[in-house]
Amino acid sequence: MEVGEHELIDLIRKAVGGPSGATLVGIGDDAAVYEPTGELALLTCDAFVEDVHFRRSFAAFGLIGAKFVISNVSDIAAMGGFPTHAVVSLGVPGDMSAADVERLYAGMLDAARRYGVEIVGGDIVASRSGLLASVAMVGTVSRERVVTRAGAVVGDVVLTTGRFGGSEAGLKSLTEGLKNTGLVRAAMRRHLEPVARIAEAQALIDVATPHAMIDVSDGLASEVRHLADESGVGMRIHRDRIPVAPEAVEVGRILGIDPLELALGSGEEFELLVTIPASEAERTIEHVSAVTGTAVTCIGEVTERLERCIMVDPRGDEEPLPRVGYEHLAAPRN
Amino acid sequence: MEVGEHELIDLIRKAVGGPSGATLVGIGDDAAVYEPTGELALLTCDAFVEDVHFRRSFAAFGLIGAKFVISNVSDIAAMGGFPTHAVVSLGVPGDMSAADVERLYAGMLDAARRYGVEIVGGDIVASRSGLLASVAMVGTVSRERVVTRAGAVVGDVVLTTGRFGGSEAGLKSLTEGLKNTGLVRAAMRRHLEPVARIAEAQALIDVATPHAMIDVSDGLASEVRHLADESGVGMRIHRDRIPVAPEAVEVGRILGIDPLELALGSGEEFELLVTIPASEAERTIEHVSAVTGTAVTCIGEVTERLERCIMVDPRGDEEPLPRVGYEHLAAPRN
Repeated sequence: MEVGEHELIDLIRKAVGGPSGATLVGIGDDAAVYEPTGELALLTCDAFVEDVHFRRSFAAFGLIGAKFVISNVSDIAAMGGFPTHAVVSLGVPGDMSAADVERLYAGMLDAARRYGVEIVGGDIVASRSGLLASVAMVGTVSRERVVTRAGAVVGDVVLTTGRFGGSEAGLKSLTEGLKNTGLVRAAMRRHLEPVARIAEAQALIDVATPHAMIDVSDGLASEVRHLADESGVGMRIHRDRIPVAPEAVEVGRILGIDPLELALGSGEEFELLVTIPASEAERTIEHVSAVTGTAVTCIGEVTERLERCIMVDPRGDEEPLPRVGYEHLAAPRN
Repeated sequence: MEVGEHELIDLIRKAVGGPSGATLVGIGDDAAVYEPTGELALLTCDAFVEDVHFRRSFAAFGLIGAKFVISNVSDIAAMGGFPTHAVVSLGVPGDMSAADVERLYAGMLDAARRYGVEIVGGDIVASRSGLLASVAMVGTVSRERVVTRAGAVVGDVVLTTGRFGGSEAGLKSLTEGLKNTGLVRAAMRRHLEPVARIAEAQALIDVATPHAMIDVSDGLASEVRHLADESGVGMRIHRDRIPVAPEAVEVGRILGIDPLELALGSGEEFELLVTIPASEAERTIEHVSAVTGTAVTCIGEVTERLERCIMVDPRGDEEPLPRVGYEHLAAPRN
């Protein structure tokens, strides 16, 4: 780093600009000050470690920064809320320039603006081992629209937005150095430029009574287990209904990996997994697709806890839902 | 780490306990949900890197964790507010055990309870290079009690709480391996077990009209410059009025360092630096000391911007305020 802390903070303040709207004090004071809007507040954070969660060789700093923000927006979406403000802790290694930090911020700011988030503060320290980041985000939600992980009820159906496996397919394509064309390119973009499902969550809550919701950041199978565990229920997932992304099919073909395995284990999909009353399924799928353009699929049902999480094939044969997905304290995998 | 991510999160959830009071959803969901109290919200974060901001050889994990929290509480205090909720991002290295993480959390929870903060979520990832942490904290403040860094007015007096140099004296004592007795011991404790000045800030606002306030985390001289820069004023600091901690005098004597240099450069003091109208000085010093037991000292005056930040000695000789203090992107110093 060729500039000092205060010069760098000045660069960041210039990039971020002054506080706007309901924000009274933004970057540059001991804490940001804003008017809380809405009935209830949401608070979440996500941490990112270079070469564990991202690689500079795979993406420019702008995309890396955008993903830091979108990962948090996705958490807010899955609670039924809207994100409003964020603070960013950065650990900057010696081999990053001030221009690199500006690029990182440009990406964060671009993503933040896209989702109506204001970056209002942070901390910047020296890192001895690659770029480190933690983004904390606050949001707002109406009391009657909060959806936790803990409300799934026996008899609910299990829906997902979007298609699965694309992000992991993209990561594997980048790791294996596949040629960046066609569906491989689409997979890479899916991994590097994810979207958060704010609009889809809102459309779901508009039309249905979501009992439990989570965003898929650790893999579909893993999140099914999370929802089931937190709700104290079982879940029955139909193997042939899992919406596998065409990117996963193509990359699976090239690399000799079962696309379904990609779909079940792929982290950072940022799709929503939600349970709603069975009676609401049809109109929900129709409404959310119509309003947002995002496919919604019914992949299973909520069952008694004793039945655990199982996967059933079209012939009715059952097996435990595979234990695949991202384990954050395991050895880094990418 | 001998346990997986979910086992560790379960341990943390048990340590933290269920949500209380105005918190509807705590640890274990996509985001925490709480009722915002008060007119305005505060948001801040601080990042900590092992061997840059703390050392395991200097303090047990409990004290390390407590300091993560107190550092943020201090930022909230300096805005005139009360902290309410926090989220914690941890990067856990392979050589930390689950019991170590529990000890870290015990310290964070202890400090959080002391200041009325609830830890409501977080993220935990693998680190390849020592313990990493970022704590983000929200708080609440009444509109008429917000104090920023930017309001100092020519003619104000400059006050501080407490005494300076103790934290740096403690750090140097630890680094140099001084014998842990008497004032050296007090200095070490000052460095490892700081307090945040919530009560002092409130007492100040009760009795006076603070125009600008900051907490001293980067060193007194550095924070004087911050307040002056943000307010667009100069400051005249009287060398002989700077309250030097007896710990700094003693450690300075042992190590052959000017105690005043320690007092001006010592980071992580977490004392308040504040400007108020001169007419309020006397009653403010009296009231805050009486209510909190913490000494308050008038160390200087706010001047025109053109006069910059200067230090004046008892004979009236002036020099620029020394440029000492903690520079977060410089080479690690401890």
